[in-house]
Amino acid sequence: MLTALRGGCIYVSRDTMAELRKDPLTHRWVIVSTERTKSPTEFISSTTVSESETGKTDPLAEGNEKMTPPEIYAFRPKAGPANSGGWKVRVIPNTYPVLRIEGQNRAEGVGIYDMMDGVGAHEIIIETPKPDQPLETLPLEDIADVFKTFKLRMIDLEHDMRFRYLLVFKNVGKVAGASLTHSHSQLIATPVVPKIVQDKLDMSEAYYQDKERSIFEDILQQELRDNHRIVYQNSGFVAFCPYASRFPFEISIFPRRQMCDFYASEKNDFLQIADCYKVVIQKLNKALNHPHYNCLLYTAPTRSSTAAARLNGLEKYFRWHLEIFPRVTMITGFEVGSGFYINPVPPEAAAQFMQDVQV
Amino acid sequence: MLTALRGGCIYVSRDTMAELRKDPLTHRWVIVSTERTKSPTEFISSTTVSESETGKTDPLAEGNEKMTPPEIYAFRPKAGPANSGGWKVRVIPNTYPVLRIEGQNRAEGVGIYDMMDGVGAHEIIIETPKPDQPLETLPLEDIADVFKTFKLRMIDLEHDMRFRYLLVFKNVGKVAGASLTHSHSQLIATPVVPKIVQDKLDMSEAYYQDKERSIFEDILQQELRDNHRIVYQNSGFVAFCPYASRFPFEISIFPRRQMCDFYASEKNDFLQIADCYKVVIQKLNKALNHPHYNCLLYTAPTRSSTAAARLNGLEKYFRWHLEIFPRVTMITGFEVGSGFYINPVPPEAAAQFMQDVQV
Repeated sequence: MLTALRGGCIYVSRDTMAELRKDPLTHRWVIVSTERTKSPTEFISSTTVSESETGKTDPLAEGNEKMTPPEIYAFRPKAGPANSGGWKVRVIPNTYPVLRIEGQNRAEGVGIYDMMDGVGAHEIIIETPKPDQPLETLPLEDIADVFKTFKLRMIDLEHDMRFRYLLVFKNVGKVAGASLTHSHSQLIATPVVPKIVQDKLDMSEAYYQDKERSIFEDILQQELRDNHRIVYQNSGFVAFCPYASRFPFEISIFPRRQMCDFYASEKNDFLQIADCYKVVIQKLNKALNHPHYNCLLYTAPTRSSTAAARLNGLEKYFRWHLEIFPRVTMITGFEVGSGFYINPVPPEAAAQFMQDVQV
Repeated sequence: MLTALRGGCIYVSRDTMAELRKDPLTHRWVIVSTERTKSPTEFISSTTVSESETGKTDPLAEGNEKMTPPEIYAFRPKAGPANSGGWKVRVIPNTYPVLRIEGQNRAEGVGIYDMMDGVGAHEIIIETPKPDQPLETLPLEDIADVFKTFKLRMIDLEHDMRFRYLLVFKNVGKVAGASLTHSHSQLIATPVVPKIVQDKLDMSEAYYQDKERSIFEDILQQELRDNHRIVYQNSGFVAFCPYASRFPFEISIFPRRQMCDFYASEKNDFLQIADCYKVVIQKLNKALNHPHYNCLLYTAPTRSSTAAARLNGLEKYFRWHLEIFPRVTMITGFEVGSGFYINPVPPEAAAQFMQDVQV
C-alpha cells in the first residue's frame, strides 16, 4: 500500500484526528492533530521526510493503480475502466489526508478560542503516467490537461457546502516538502480561508473601494510599463518577480484577463498558462540548477456556503494567480514569527537574469 | 575581521544597498537588496550558511574584542576601558547589517508601490564572554543581565525618531539560521512595523474595542484555568503551548502583569523571565535533544515618531511576550505562501510531555 504520500511537508497519520484552530492574536487557522495516544516524540520522528522513492516501485506510475486508493477522476483519452492504465492525468485521495472528508463542519468556541472539526478533502493530482517526468517537460497540451483537471476538481468540490477554500499547490523536491519524485500536485479543500488568501482579499477589496480599480490590473499594467521585473509573457499571462519579493527568484504569474475563479479558465487559458509555466520553470531550472520549489494557486473562496455572502464584488477586485517560490534560502522561525523577510537578490536582477536565460 | 555575523538567516553584504518595499497585496514590508553589480547567482551562493566557527577563533569571545567592530555598550561589573575584557554582556554593531544606521527615512511611491530607504540599526548582543556557553546554562543573574541589556538598547534606540519597531530575536543552531555558535541575540531597528506584529496589534485592539478587556489577560486566565497547555510558570511569567500552535512544541511566554513595552520591565521581571526562559529551554533540550530554535520578543512599536499617534490605548490592549519556535519540522513555501500550518503534535500533548520532563 501507498505509504509515503503526504500533504504539505507534514502528514497526519492514518489514525490521527485533526481539528482546525484559530489563533486569537493573528486570526490564522492551523490544522492541529488532536491524537493523544502516542508520545510527542513519536510524532516528531514520523514527520521526517522519507527517502525519495526512486529505485523502489513508483506507486503513482501507470500500471501500479492498485497501489493507490481508488481514483476520484482520471483523464483517459481512449476511455477505459477506472483504476486501470491508459490515463494521462489521475486524481486520487491522499492516503494520509490532513483533513477528513467525513463529518459535518462542527464549529464551536472553546472559551475565547475558536475551533472546527478537521473536515475537508485532500487529493493528489498525478500529472503524468510516467516516473521521472517533471511537469514542465511534458508537451504543452498535456500540461494544459493538468490545469484543466484542477478546474474539474474545483468545480466538483465547490458544490460541497462545507468547504470555503480550495487550495491547489505543488511541492517539487525534498526541501520544498515533496516526499515523492513522481510529478504531482495536491488539492486541499478547507472549511476556512487561509490567512494569506484572506489578506489578499482584504487588501484588494480595500483598494477597489478606494480607487474603483482592480489592484491586480494596476500591478500588471505597472509591471508591463516598467518592464524591469518581467520574466516572460504570452497572450494570456505575464510572469514577473514581484516588487516586494520575499525570496530570491520568487515569481508571480497573473492572467491578463479578469477572472476571480481559476475554474473560469477555458481551453485557450489552459494552453497559455501551460506555456507560461513551462517556460518559467525551464528558466528557473537553468538559472538555479533545478531548484526545489513550491507553487501555489490563489483563487477566490468558494461561494456556495452562506458565509460567502460578504464576498460580493469579488469578481471585480480579486484575480486568480500563481506564485512560485524557489527554495534557495532557508526559511526560519524568524520569518514566520515576524512576517519580516530579507531578500538578498533584487527582483529586478533576478528577472533580468531569467530573461537572459534561453530555454 | 569578523566575517560571519549575519542578520536573520540571510546577510546583505557590506557593499549592498537595501531598501524596504511594501507588498501591495498583503501590506508586508520586505528588506530587498538593490545592489545590481553582482550576478544573482553570486548573491545566492553568498547566502549559504557557513560552517560553524567551532575550532576557529571565536570573534565574540573575551580577549578577541579587536576582531569585532567597536562596542556600542558593554556591562563590565568592575568597569574598565571599552573594547577590552572584563565584560559579561557586550553589544556590537553587526558587521553585515541588513539595514544601515546612516541616512534619513526617505519614503516614496514607485507607481502603486511604496518604498523606504533601508535605514535602521542592526546590533549583536553577545550574551556571555565564553564560547560554548548557551544562554540557559548561565546563572540566573547573568541571564537577567542579558534581558536587562535588551531594555537598555531599546530605550536608547527608542529615542531615534526614524525607528518604528525594535525587533529582538535569537537564532540557535544552523537550521534556525545561526551562523555562529557563540551565544548571542540580535536587535533590528526598523522604520516599519513587521506584519505579524501589526496583525497582533490590530487583533488585540479590536478585541479591546469589543470587550474592554485585554486579549492577553484573557488568554492567560484561560490557560491557567484549563491547565492543559502550561509548560512552566513562576510568579512573573507563564509559559504555554499556544492553543493554535503552528509548530510542534511551539511555546509562548506571557508576563503576568500588564506591560506593553518590554523596556518597562524591572529587576524582578528580569530575574523571573530569566528563570522561565532557563527552565523552558532546558526542558526543550531534554525533550527534543537540543533542537535548533528561534526566539522572538514581541513588544509595542516605538512611540517617539508622530506616526505612532494612532497607537493610543496600546498600554491597555497590548502586552509584550516571547515566542519560541523549535525547528523540528520543515518550513516550506507552502506555509509562507498560504499562511496555513499543519501541526502534527497537539499542543496539549507537547505541554504534558514538557511538564513531565525534569530539569
